[in-house]
Amino acid sequence: MTVEDAGPPSPAADAALTPTPEAERAPTHSGPWVRHDRRLVYDNPWLTVFHDEVSRPDGSPGIYGVVHFKRLAVGVVATDPDGRILLVGQHRYTLDEYSWEIPEGGVEPDETPLEGARRELREETGYEAAAWRQLCRITVSNSVTDERGAIFHATDVREGTATPDATEELVVRWAPLEEVSDMIDRGVIHDLLTIAGVSRFAAERAGRGSER
Amino acid sequence: MTVEDAGPPSPAADAALTPTPEAERAPTHSGPWVRHDRRLVYDNPWLTVFHDEVSRPDGSPGIYGVVHFKRLAVGVVATDPDGRILLVGQHRYTLDEYSWEIPEGGVEPDETPLEGARRELREETGYEAAAWRQLCRITVSNSVTDERGAIFHATDVREGTATPDATEELVVRWAPLEEVSDMIDRGVIHDLLTIAGVSRFAAERAGRGSER
Repeated sequence: MTVEDAGPPSPAADAALTPTPEAERAPTHSGPWVRHDRRLVYDNPWLTVFHDEVSRPDGSPGIYGVVHFKRLAVGVVATDPDGRILLVGQHRYTLDEYSWEIPEGGVEPDETPLEGARRELREETGYEAAAWRQLCRITVSNSVTDERGAIFHATDVREGTATPDATEELVVRWAPLEEVSDMIDRGVIHDLLTIAGVSRFAAERAGRGSER
Repeated sequence: MTVEDAGPPSPAADAALTPTPEAERAPTHSGPWVRHDRRLVYDNPWLTVFHDEVSRPDGSPGIYGVVHFKRLAVGVVATDPDGRILLVGQHRYTLDEYSWEIPEGGVEPDETPLEGARRELREETGYEAAAWRQLCRITVSNSVTDERGAIFHATDVREGTATPDATEELVVRWAPLEEVSDMIDRGVIHDLLTIAGVSRFAAERAGRGSER
């Protein structure tokens, strides 16, 4: 999901040299942190990278590189009545590694998180779900990024036709919960959003004594 | 953990203008993706940001911004015999939001992931644990970053003295599993690594019928 037609080649070369406007130079606070200056060092349609000059909680000077995500992240734990889970397999460019995951992606500006989750499920797998509830809200990697999002549980699932976008070469399959848990144990499933969503579903299901 | 004494002010301004060396211009592959060019646009002690020119899985041209993490991420689900979980509260600079989390941080270059996990637990909470096992390996936010790591389960825990670093203003407490689960439901706990680790522990515990 992090790609588009090749545009102007050097957004960062200009951005890195752009001085911070005077109006943004006043110190701002983030809890016990103080930001004295912020420079935009990279920008593309999905993220912006800032280089900040800060005072740390103990008052000492420091720097902080912040990766701002422009879109919310959503993931969908879609289950059938037997507790099987819908998985999508793809090669992740960033990792150069294959990854089995729940359907997930970014929320478009004109969507609610739930609408984005419905669209990602439909695009990546073709499936539609009649019943939805939020499993949790999330912050994904908060030492460096401000990426936020939500994981949903989708049930009453019906098959349709997948329409993946150009960045996705996807394999779709249903896997029993026990197999998914074993894939996490073996490190075959490593995507953190998938581990969180599946494990939260598994904990609820186990707590109810496998009632659906 | 993402801060240091203020160094040279403009790593990115120079980096963004650095042409890619000729030797690195050959196309490289990441599964069905092809990378035609890579430019370093930002660098600090914790991360490097690259701007790549790519061909997507369907062959169409695109760009990809990749955030490379220099250190592995580790998290520690430390539990006592009653299944209570050790939590650390802090204000996250990136989010400008308070966050209750399991002890977590980055692995130093001279450490194994387990050694990093032991150190983070000790520094942030003062606690030491005698029994350790890996709950899962993780990739944290793989649409944009290559951040990898692991979550551990620590038991047989003994109290000591915390030594947080200058970036951390921490509150430490033990919380029953039911309360932690409720905090996830209410969005008070939102850190994805915490949700994944705690839920995996909860699913195992529930599956064993609350045996320890």
